[in-house]
Formats: sequence, structure tokens, C-alpha cells
Amino acid sequence: MAKPVHIGLIGFGTIGTGVARILQNDGDTLARRAGRPLTLKTVAELKFLAKEGIDATRFTVTKDATDIISDPEIDIVIELIGGVQPARSFIEGALRNKKHVITANKELIAKHGRELFALARENNVNLNFEASTCGGIPIINAMTSALCANSFSVLYGIVNGTTNYILTRMQKEHVSFADVLKDAQRLGYAEADPSSDVDGHDIAYKLCILASIAFNHFFDINEIHREGISRISHRDIEIATSYGYVIKMLAIGVNHGDTVELRVHPVMLPAAHPLASVNGAFNAVFVEGSNVGQSMFYGRGAGELPTASAVMGDAVEIARRLDAGRTSEALNFGSAPCRLMPMDDIVSMYYLRFAVDDRPGVLAQISRAFGDNDVSIKLVKQDDLGNRRAELNIMTHEVRESKLQAAVREIAALPTVNEVCSLIRMSS
Amino acid sequence: MAKPVHIGLIGFGTIGTGVARILQNDGDTLARRAGRPLTLKTVAELKFLAKEGIDATRFTVTKDATDIISDPEIDIVIELIGGVQPARSFIEGALRNKKHVITANKELIAKHGRELFALARENNVNLNFEASTCGGIPIINAMTSALCANSFSVLYGIVNGTTNYILTRMQKEHVSFADVLKDAQRLGYAEADPSSDVDGHDIAYKLCILASIAFNHFFDINEIHREGISRISHRDIEIATSYGYVIKMLAIGVNHGDTVELRVHPVMLPAAHPLASVNGAFNAVFVEGSNVGQSMFYGRGAGELPTASAVMGDAVEIARRLDAGRTSEALNFGSAPCRLMPMDDIVSMYYLRFAVDDRPGVLAQISRAFGDNDVSIKLVKQDDLGNRRAELNIMTHEVRESKLQAAVREIAALPTVNEVCSLIRMSS
Repeated sequence: MAKPVHIGLIGFGTIGTGVARILQNDGDTLARRAGRPLTLKTVAELKFLAKEGIDATRFTVTKDATDIISDPEIDIVIELIGGVQPARSFIEGALRNKKHVITANKELIAKHGRELFALARENNVNLNFEASTCGGIPIINAMTSALCANSFSVLYGIVNGTTNYILTRMQKEHVSFADVLKDAQRLGYAEADPSSDVDGHDIAYKLCILASIAFNHFFDINEIHREGISRISHRDIEIATSYGYVIKMLAIGVNHGDTVELRVHPVMLPAAHPLASVNGAFNAVFVEGSNVGQSMFYGRGAGELPTASAVMGDAVEIARRLDAGRTSEALNFGSAPCRLMPMDDIVSMYYLRFAVDDRPGVLAQISRAFGDNDVSIKLVKQDDLGNRRAELNIMTHEVRESKLQAAVREIAALPTVNEVCSLIRMSS
Repeated sequence: MAKPVHIGLIGFGTIGTGVARILQNDGDTLARRAGRPLTLKTVAELKFLAKEGIDATRFTVTKDATDIISDPEIDIVIELIGGVQPARSFIEGALRNKKHVITANKELIAKHGRELFALARENNVNLNFEASTCGGIPIINAMTSALCANSFSVLYGIVNGTTNYILTRMQKEHVSFADVLKDAQRLGYAEADPSSDVDGHDIAYKLCILASIAFNHFFDINEIHREGISRISHRDIEIATSYGYVIKMLAIGVNHGDTVELRVHPVMLPAAHPLASVNGAFNAVFVEGSNVGQSMFYGRGAGELPTASAVMGDAVEIARRLDAGRTSEALNFGSAPCRLMPMDDIVSMYYLRFAVDDRPGVLAQISRAFGDNDVSIKLVKQDDLGNRRAELNIMTHEVRESKLQAAVREIAALPTVNEVCSLIRMSS
């Protein structure tokens, strides 16, 4: 067997612990699959804490990541501290020192992937990032290797466990967003400041990475349209269920050739859609490839061992080609000329819920506003709320977003319309 | 860019046409992803027929596969004729001539994979076979690469489109097995002799391959327990539905450490199971890995382009490491000592349906037979069939197969029991 690969690990939090655990416990399997042993030499962590089941005498602990970056014996640097800085400097230093780098850092790859991959290529080393997106789901490997003989036209993902957990519980237990969120925070499924998850920031990073690979172009994270789930009410879920739909928070990418749609928002999906039954903390990514057709990958999106499994998959991949002395062609991202489609131009079906006065003529006024803006209505259901109030549920046929929004603005201004309660895009 | 890779294609049927189509139409994408152009040099086919959209002037056509195997310019031989011979001789010849080989031949890999991989290693070349199992689903790549830091304990697969199509239509349209089969044959979804599909032979080949990778041991195809779907009646599907189950034809592998269960038979799955909503001609493979946890891969299991996509994924993989001059470590299958668990020893829940005389005491006799054999009953439902006949549906708790079968033998011998209509294993 070839000489060992030496690994330096920057960051010893949840995922770092998982990486150390797999290296310690599954050494034989990894060695057989990599063709050489994988050895954890050094861990850099400012506040190193011993972890259950990890023998910390097997590696050196340092507070200074430079000890890893400048160690000539270390072949692979694994960065698991997250955030842009100092992670970016560490990774750049490692690449310049001809070390292969593995990262789980979605923010850094989404914001600076293009420059970092260029630097990796200049130095003939690899920069792998499977763990940055959907932990245990090997979607990046799939798109860059096994499915690489495809152009992708569609990418739909449930890529955030927190929002999927909240929506699943709202659906199954008939409880409100606020109540589930509180409970999720108590159980550790949601952060004290939940904005990164519930407002879709985390999803936008992941969509930016997945779309860059799928559509062969580095996109600007700031251009991705993003809406959160905090306005989804239990009433919407109830109505969705009654029509055979579920509401899921999705990352959506659609390639039209010269333009690409990238958007993050809740969607009403038919219950029979492969993504509709992805529940709780699970993630899934659905793609449509030019040759393979529809394909879906399902698994845990986070957690110590699922994410560490992705890191170690990358490590074995690098170890297998350690002698190649060049950057893997899997990282040959292109830069197809393409621009993001303005949100106004997307075409979708829509579900709308209005609180209106319960009196004759209201539906006629609303219908006229839709008709005047070329919005074709598929279904209307009116429920008496008592006290001369009614709830109107409307589903539209496919229409351009700008026209739908124009109609909704007109409807909101009608004196008989008390509130536009919900606007949720639908998918077939 | 590096020098082109020359490909020789043996067999120009459906998949071969797809391979030629992708090589012709997606050349630029493939070249960028492989780091070098991929060129189809020669096609060997006894009865070459021009195919729509394929420019046959771009390659040489021969009737003699030896023209490919002995051509020093050809780097990769793609074998797509299927069956053991002459495919085996062609592949062995190619490997001996230091050519990388890609095959979609499940029968050959299941029966002779061990020897063929050894021959590939001896000659420092690769033998890739993603397309042999579940066409468009990159499950082999996932297990050998991105998920390689896992030991797998469970493998459940819907790996045959024909049986899944038949069961899906039986479920959705309330029609009989015979009627759907006839229709499937008319539409080309089932062969004139459907045995390879409906009796589970095709599934056993695929299970043999997947289990060998997942459980790190080459299994003997002849030892796999196999039951077909022809005895599944629409009544069983109706009852399954009423209890929130669906009936799916599964390939099952369970690793107990020293023993492994490998079996192919219909299973009643809870409707919420990720595999339960895999319908029609789609395939899916569900695995449980030691680190990644539950993971599922979904896509088209067959067809010209999905299967050709898998072949080309392998081709790009080989092209990327063409300079390595050694067999990929992805093919480092082990040979963990393990034996197949006898079917008698497996533990499952069971669904049973009996036609019985509708008279007092029958249920007591049946219950006693179950009790005497330590079979614990979870649910009994009795339906009057008229004419002093009744139907008894029984679901058991988990029990060892040998005990269940002993009870069923006793019950079948009871004078009040007219028929054991169904015995279907259940999964949670």
C-alpha cells in the first residue's frame, strides 16, 4: 500500500469531531478504499475540548492554524470553522502551499468559490466541498462525476432541515409557525436567531453552489430571490392538504438556456411529487438532466456523522488521485454566459388567499382584476367566516409573475378586500 | 487539453445508440469534464442498422469485436451486448490488452465479477459497471466514492421498472396482474417472456452486484432467495391500501455482521416509507450507512439515454485518470468473511390472507396454530364472503420465518381453511 496521507483539521466542533471519529474508527475501510492509510496529524482549534470516544493523544492539538498550513508533511487540509474570515485566508494559504483542501463552508464557496477554484487550479491541487451542501447527500459528486454527461435544466431542493422540520410539524400536528419554531429552538433544531434558516439565507448559499455546478456558471448570491416561511400559516397548510398539496421550502433553479431562474421560497407541491414526502430534518435534491431525466437524492442534510461522511468521501477521492499532481477535472466548472431572470419574468401557478367582505359582487371585482391582467383562474373557493366576512382561496393557471403581482396590487386596493393573507407559488 | 481518448463500442442496440448519441451531441461538455476529448472510433455490431440522428460516418463499423479489442489506439472498450458469452471473452480480451472496460452487463458482473475485477487489477486497468444496475441512478459511484466512508447495514431497492410499473398500475387502476402484464407487453414495458422480470431474476442479478459492493463480499447469485409478483392479487393491494401500505417488489440486503440476508420478493411497505412513492418505471435504492444514515437515490432504471448517461459517467471517470496507469481504488472490493443467512432464519412481520369456512371456532383454531409456533398476531380482520365463506386478513408481529411457515403449514391443513391466498412480508 502507498504511503499514508496526512490530514490537518481546522476546527473541532461538531463536524470536526465526526471527521476525527471516522478517521479513528474506520481506518481500515478508508485505507482499503483510498489505496493508502489516512492519518489525522494535527487539529487546530482555539478552544479544544475533549470529545467522548475520541482519543486526542493520536494527534497534535494547536491553537494556530498556520501550524497545519505550513506543515510540509500535511497533504490535505480540512477547514470546518465556517464563515468567510479567517477561513478564506487559511484555505488560500493551504492552496498556495500545494495542499489539497476540503471544506464544509457554504458561505465561503458561494461567495468566493470562483477565485478559490482558480487558485486551486494554479497550484495543481484540489478544493472539494461536498459537505458544504446537504451534508450526507452526495449531490455534488453525482453532478460532477456519475451524471457529468448531462446538462441540467431543473434543480429543486429541500436543502434546509430546520425549515423542513417546521413545515412538517405544522402539517402533521396542526400547529402554528410560532409554536413549532419555539419548540424547534428548545430542541436545538433551530438557532436562537432563526433568520439564517427561516428567511432562506442558508438555502440561498446552497442554491448558489448547486446551481453553479448544475448550470455551469458562478452566480451572485445577492441576486437570488429569497422569501422565508414565517408568513406560512396553518390555514394555508390545511387548504393545501385539502387539495392534495404540501407546502415545502424549496431552492429552485431552472435553466432556460440564456437565462436562469434562481429562487428560494415556499412552494405548494402536489403530494405525489418525489419531494413532497421528504419530511422532518431530511433533505433531498431533485434534478432533471438532459440524458438521465429525473433524478433525486435523499438523505440527512446535517449532523456530525452524515456531514463528516461527506468530508471523508472527498478525502478518499483526493487520496486516490494524490499522485496525479493536478487539479481534478471534476472542478472544471465552466462559465457559460447566462444571466439571472428577473423575478418579474418567471412563470408559475399561484395560490392566493384573501380576507374579503361577504357581499355580492366581491368575486366579480376580484375576477375582473385578474382578467384585466391576463391571469387565468383555475379554482375559486369561498368560505364564510361569519360576521359578514369571507375567505377566498384562489388557484391560478400559469402566468407571468409581474402580471400576477399587478392583479394582486389592484385587488389589495379594493375596498371590499380586507387582506391579502397568502401568496404561494405552486408547482406541478 | 490532453490527447483524445478513443472508444470502441461493442453492441449497437438501444444503449449503444444512446452512447453514440451522447458522444456525438455532448462532445464539448464531456471534453471539459474529462479534461480531454472522447472520440468514438469503432462500433462492432453483427447487424448494424442506421439510427435516427446518429452520423455513422464519424466512426468505423465492423462485425468483428476483435477489431476493437486488438486496436492499439483504443483506450476504452464499452461492452453492451449483454449475456455471459461472448461478452465475457470480449471483456477478458480487452482487459488483457490493457484497455479499460465499461459494461452494462448485470448477468456477467453478478456471475463473474470477482474474476473480471481481478483480471482488471492484474492489468492495471479499470472495469466500470455503473450502467449494469439501475440505469440512471449513480448508486455504484455513490457507494464506492462519495459514501465510501460508510459500512452499509441495509440496502432496499426498487430496481426493476417492469414489476414496479405493473404493481403501480394494479394499485392505481384496480386491475389484475394478468391484465396489466398483457398491457405492459403490448406497450413494450414487459418482454413476451416476462419471467426475467416478474419472477425476480433481473432483480437478483442487481441485488447481487449492489450487495457485493455494499457488504464488501462477492455473493453467489444462486443463493439469493427469490419470489415473483405473479401471485400478488388486486385484493392484496386493496387490503394493503386500507391499512396504509403499498406493495413493492424489492431487492433486500441486510448485513448482520457475520451473516447477510439477501432476498427478492414483494413487500408491504408503509405508505410513508421513502420507497413507497417510487412509481411506474422509476427505480430507487435506499441504503443505511454507518455514518451517513438513511440515504436514497431515485431515477430512471432503464432506457436509452439514462443508461447511456451512466456509461458516459464511467467513461469520463476513466478518462480523468487515464494517466494514473493503475486500477482505481474504487474497485478495491474486499472479501469480508460472511455467509448468507438461510431464509428460515430471517425475521419479519407478515401479512396473510386465508379463505376459510365462516363458522364459529375457525379463528380459534388458526390463532392456536400461530400461538403454538410463537407467532404473535398484531391484527385480524374477518370479512364475510357470503355462502358461508369468510376471508381472514392477518398481520403478525416480527417472527422468525421458520416459525411462521410452520404455523402456515398447520393452518393450511385445517379442514376449515380452504386456501392460503397470500403471504407477503411486511417492513416498517
